[in-house]
Amino acid sequence: MGSPTATAPWKQLLLDALRSNSSLKHSSFFQLATVGSNGRPANRTVVFRGFQEGSDKIQIHTDSRSRKIEELKHNPLAEICWYFTDSWEQFRISGIVEMIDHSNPDSLKLQQREKAWHACSVKSRLQYLGPTPGLPYIGEHLTDENSLDSSTSPVDSFCLLIMDPDQVDYLNLKSNQRMTFTSTQSDSQEKCWALERINP
Amino acid sequence: MGSPTATAPWKQLLLDALRSNSSLKHSSFFQLATVGSNGRPANRTVVFRGFQEGSDKIQIHTDSRSRKIEELKHNPLAEICWYFTDSWEQFRISGIVEMIDHSNPDSLKLQQREKAWHACSVKSRLQYLGPTPGLPYIGEHLTDENSLDSSTSPVDSFCLLIMDPDQVDYLNLKSNQRMTFTSTQSDSQEKCWALERINP
Repeated sequence: MGSPTATAPWKQLLLDALRSNSSLKHSSFFQLATVGSNGRPANRTVVFRGFQEGSDKIQIHTDSRSRKIEELKHNPLAEICWYFTDSWEQFRISGIVEMIDHSNPDSLKLQQREKAWHACSVKSRLQYLGPTPGLPYIGEHLTDENSLDSSTSPVDSFCLLIMDPDQVDYLNLKSNQRMTFTSTQSDSQEKCWALERINP
Repeated sequence: MGSPTATAPWKQLLLDALRSNSSLKHSSFFQLATVGSNGRPANRTVVFRGFQEGSDKIQIHTDSRSRKIEELKHNPLAEICWYFTDSWEQFRISGIVEMIDHSNPDSLKLQQREKAWHACSVKSRLQYLGPTPGLPYIGEHLTDENSLDSSTSPVDSFCLLIMDPDQVDYLNLKSNQRMTFTSTQSDSQEKCWALERINP
């Protein structure tokens, strides 16, 4: 096992993978697994919305009315599986997910949510004005695009998810190498990462 | 909600997606989510090994020594997330996973395992002779390819997983349509599927 390091060593590997697969639109998609209150695993594709500034925390946008919100309220643990189809690399990223919705009492977090909302395209924002995801479809829903000019605050159904990773499993299917990265809290409360090569 | 039907209506959609994405090697890869004994979700990429003959059950091969086996012994529920990158279709397939390893007492099931083993390429089979997945790497492991001639029985670490789906969530991102398929047991113990269009 290598000596622990304060900067997340897997983050650079992930940024490299994103760059080498950037010609593929789907390279920013990954699968997020959560656990329902009935103990049933759930798994869906979501979009990577970047790292939170200056950190290794992963941002995702979602609809507050979607089932994953209920699941995360019950159990905030999640695992991302991110497979890069061009470079044949897989990242399994495990950690706790924080939800920042309109009712968040922390003004700094509400600012992060506002910033995330304004980073969205108008087309992405329009989704949050649609009918409740997962409910029976009762016909075409028309949303007024004009209600979303660039100055509008985030709508209530817009929720920012932030995953704080504590374990990463990296597999490279071309070189057949696999590594785990495990975070440990140092005395100064700073996250430290230990890496170990393991059998694929 | 449509009237229930005995043949799995999502299976044809999946076969169509497989065909229309068949030029992409990764179209047969999907992400399998399970739950660890600690309540933590786990998520990894696996390869689709076809349907079990004449059924809608999904076959996967794995190493008996991998962590997902422990997880499935503790909680056999799993959810597949299968995103087709060319046709923009997602299938979320939820169900119970059965494990068929060398110790299975049912001779019919052992035959299925044997058949699955012989359907594998030599390269795939060689993986099962390698060191235990996930343990610390202690150097290059040389496996004797000759020990695996085509008549050899499956090695002990080869495990056939069979998922019996009971719920499927289908999303088409091009048409923005979403449907759920839910299985119900009929009086004759036959699985019936009800489908419903829901909001994306």
